[in-house]
Amino acid sequence: MPYDITPIGTIESTLTERADAPRQGDEGAPDAWIVVDASFAPALDGIRLGDRLVILTWLHLGQRDVLRTHARNDNTRPEQGVFSTRSPDRPNPIGLHPVEVVEIAGNRLRVAPLEAIAGTPVVDIKPEL
Amino acid sequence: MPYDITPIGTIESTLTERADAPRQGDEGAPDAWIVVDASFAPALDGIRLGDRLVILTWLHLGQRDVLRTHARNDNTRPEQGVFSTRSPDRPNPIGLHPVEVVEIAGNRLRVAPLEAIAGTPVVDIKPEL
Repeated sequence: MPYDITPIGTIESTLTERADAPRQGDEGAPDAWIVVDASFAPALDGIRLGDRLVILTWLHLGQRDVLRTHARNDNTRPEQGVFSTRSPDRPNPIGLHPVEVVEIAGNRLRVAPLEAIAGTPVVDIKPEL
Repeated sequence: MPYDITPIGTIESTLTERADAPRQGDEGAPDAWIVVDASFAPALDGIRLGDRLVILTWLHLGQRDVLRTHARNDNTRPEQGVFSTRSPDRPNPIGLHPVEVVEIAGNRLRVAPLEAIAGTPVVDIKPEL
């Protein structure tokens, strides 16, 4: 039985192409804005500058029928199951992005670093694991 | 625009009631089995005993219309936005569970510790952040 996931916001970033995005945030990703829809803004109360958060995204360009892949998209590596990788190609393409909050402006959070591209839907925000 | 999220498996656990579950895995949660649907079993290839994983669940008992709550369900604390808490009551009730793999049996992974209750849908499995 599938469930509906409803975006609570969107990423604004200078990254616009999947090919340009670093594979992980700590590999040279830029700052980006999390723009939370006004209807969900009350859920941001309590987030402070400097907080470490995990941003959950829906990696909308991911291929959902991929079960095996080459880690880091490197064809010289053996194929392995996607659950042992962080590939965006997977049955439910949810991205986990550990970030720091560097600016807060109403329902907008500037966070760093973030490797997701502009337009990526945001589905949840949590304190770091 | 909502997206469909399709469970890739289910939790088997001795925990059966939300009221009995610890709030976080490191607060006395038991071992549990991740039972992956046979159709997704190829995606497990490469997961090894001792691996540290993040299990993503759909917290199906979460109340999705809650935007503000008391942290740790403690009414003596001030109300705050759910995105600054790990409450299961949130717009998209995705749970993140850091675990260690302690047994592998075909398409079943025994992991520890896991505070999600029996029957909780599993939506993704990733290497630890």
